[in-house]
Amino acid sequence: MKILITGGAGFIGSHLADFLISKKHEVVAVDNLLLGRKENIIHLADNKNFKFIKEDLMNINELKEIFQENDFDVVFHLAANSDIQNSAKNPQIDLNNTFMTTWNTLECCRLFNVNKFIFASSSAIYGDVQEKLTENFGPLFPISYYGAGKLASEGFISAYAYMNDIQAWIIRFPNVVGERATHGVIHDFIKKLRNNPNELEILGDGKQKKPYLYVKDLIEAMFFVYQKTKYRFNCYNVGVEDQTAVSEIAKIVCEEMGLRNVRLNYTGGNIGWKGDVPQFKYNLDKIHQLGWKAKYSSTEAVRIAVRRILGK
Amino acid sequence: MKILITGGAGFIGSHLADFLISKKHEVVAVDNLLLGRKENIIHLADNKNFKFIKEDLMNINELKEIFQENDFDVVFHLAANSDIQNSAKNPQIDLNNTFMTTWNTLECCRLFNVNKFIFASSSAIYGDVQEKLTENFGPLFPISYYGAGKLASEGFISAYAYMNDIQAWIIRFPNVVGERATHGVIHDFIKKLRNNPNELEILGDGKQKKPYLYVKDLIEAMFFVYQKTKYRFNCYNVGVEDQTAVSEIAKIVCEEMGLRNVRLNYTGGNIGWKGDVPQFKYNLDKIHQLGWKAKYSSTEAVRIAVRRILGK
Repeated sequence: MKILITGGAGFIGSHLADFLISKKHEVVAVDNLLLGRKENIIHLADNKNFKFIKEDLMNINELKEIFQENDFDVVFHLAANSDIQNSAKNPQIDLNNTFMTTWNTLECCRLFNVNKFIFASSSAIYGDVQEKLTENFGPLFPISYYGAGKLASEGFISAYAYMNDIQAWIIRFPNVVGERATHGVIHDFIKKLRNNPNELEILGDGKQKKPYLYVKDLIEAMFFVYQKTKYRFNCYNVGVEDQTAVSEIAKIVCEEMGLRNVRLNYTGGNIGWKGDVPQFKYNLDKIHQLGWKAKYSSTEAVRIAVRRILGK
Repeated sequence: MKILITGGAGFIGSHLADFLISKKHEVVAVDNLLLGRKENIIHLADNKNFKFIKEDLMNINELKEIFQENDFDVVFHLAANSDIQNSAKNPQIDLNNTFMTTWNTLECCRLFNVNKFIFASSSAIYGDVQEKLTENFGPLFPISYYGAGKLASEGFISAYAYMNDIQAWIIRFPNVVGERATHGVIHDFIKKLRNNPNELEILGDGKQKKPYLYVKDLIEAMFFVYQKTKYRFNCYNVGVEDQTAVSEIAKIVCEEMGLRNVRLNYTGGNIGWKGDVPQFKYNLDKIHQLGWKAKYSSTEAVRIAVRRILGK
C-alpha cells in the first residue's frame, strides 16, 4: 500500500513511518518541520519505500500536487499543533495547524478519491470531565483551542466520510510519551534539570493525573484498529488504565537522571496552565474487546520514555 | 444593551432584530445579503436604535473595524450557510460560511472584550440518530458539512468561552419555519406549485419527519434562555415535541393554496438528499424545566408558516 503520513517527521509520525516501512508499505511523509525534525527520519532516507516532502499542509495547492503525483491508498493524518501550552496564547495556531490542516487533507482525499482516512484525535475533545470517558460520551465541550481543533476535525471527517464514501478511523490518543518527543512534561523536566540539577519547577500542584501511553504501543494500536475494523466509520479510545501523577513523573525523571535531593517547586493550583485538563480516565472496553491491550502501564511507559530520551 | 446580530437581515436574524428592537435594545445587524435580504429589515431603516451594515464575516479585518467602532454588550451569532442542500455539493461553503464566520466573530469577541455570545446551533450536529436527542448526547458524528460546521463552531465557542471568560449560550435549533424563509421544504413546495399547480415533486418518500418550530416561538425561546440562565456555558435544545412528515406538509401547502387533485411525485428513497437527516426527535426536558414551551405544535407551525408566506 502507498500511505501518506501527514506530520511524518514528527514525534509520533516518524515512529509510524518506521512501523509501516517495517511492514513493507510505501510511505510518503509530509511535514513542515515546525515541530517535526529531519533527525527523526534521517535513518529512512535511503529506503526506497520512503519519501519525505517538506510542505506545510496549509498550502492546499501544493498538497493537491502531492496527491496528484502520488496515488495514495491510505492517509494517516497526524499533522497538528501538538504544543497545547503554547497555542493557549494564540487561537490561530490551532485553527490553522490542528483544524485547517485536517480540512485541507480531507478535501484532497475527496478530490483525488482516497477513501481510507485515519485520524489522530485526542482526549482533549472531551473537555474537563470527571467520569470515565467512553467513545460515546457527550456533550463535547473542549476547554482548549487544541481540543476544539480536534473536535472540529472529527466533525468534518464524519461529514466527509458520509458524503464521499470515505472509510474513516478516529483514534483518540491519551498523553503519548517516548523518544523523539519535542515537548510535554517529561521533555520539560529533563530540560529543566539539565539546566539546573538542584531544583525543578513543577507547573500546578503536581497532582494532575493522566494515562501515559508509550509511543510504540500507540502505533501498534492504531494499525491494529485500522486492520481489525471494517465499518465505514470507526472511533476508538486508545490508552492505558492507570494514570501517573505529575509529581510521580518528576520522581522518575530525577531517579533516572541519578539526581538526589532535587528541590521540587510547585507553582500551585490544580492545573499546569489554562486549557490543561488536570485529570482524565478512558473507558477502554471497546479496544480491549477488539483484542488490543497496551504492553506497558502508564507509569512503566513514563519510565521507558525517560530512559529512551536520556539515551539509556 | 448594544447587540450585534450576525446574519441580521436573514430569515431568523431579521425576526430577532424586530424582537430586540421592540424590547428597546440597540441593534447592529451585519449581513452579506447572500441569503439575507434588505426587504426583511427595510421597515427598521428609520429606527434610531437599528443599524444595518452590509459586510461578509469572512473579512475579519472589516469585522474588527465594526467591533472597534461599536461597543457591543452581546453578540447573537446567527450568520451561516443555511442551505444544506446546496452546500452538499461544495464543502467549502460550510467551511467558510458556517464555521469560519463563527471563528472570526469569536476572535473579535476575544480581541474587543465582548463577553456574551449566543450561538444558533442545530440538530444537525447530532448526525443521523434514532433515539431522542438530549443535550448530553454523544457521540457527535454529523453527516452533513453544515452539521460539521456547526459542531466545529460549538467546539471553538466552548474553548473560547473557557479561555477568555466569555459567557456562552448554545441554542440548538430544530427546523424553523415562518415568513421571510428563503428556502426549505415549505418554500420549495410553494415555489413549485406556483410554477405548476397540477403536480408536486417531493424529494424522498415523503416520510421524512421532523419537528418544525415557528420562527417567533424560536426567537422567544432564544431570548428566554439567554435571560434565565447564568452559567458560564449553557446549552439547550429548542423545539417542539411532535414531528410533521414531508407528505403532511405537502397536503397543508396544497390546502392553503386552494389546490385540489395535485399529483404528488415522490423521487423515492428515505432521504431528500445526501446529508439530509430523515427524522429526529428532541428531548426538551431541559428547556421545559426552565419554563419555556412552544406556543405552536410542529404541524400548527407549518400551517401558520404556509399562511404567512402566502400573505394570508
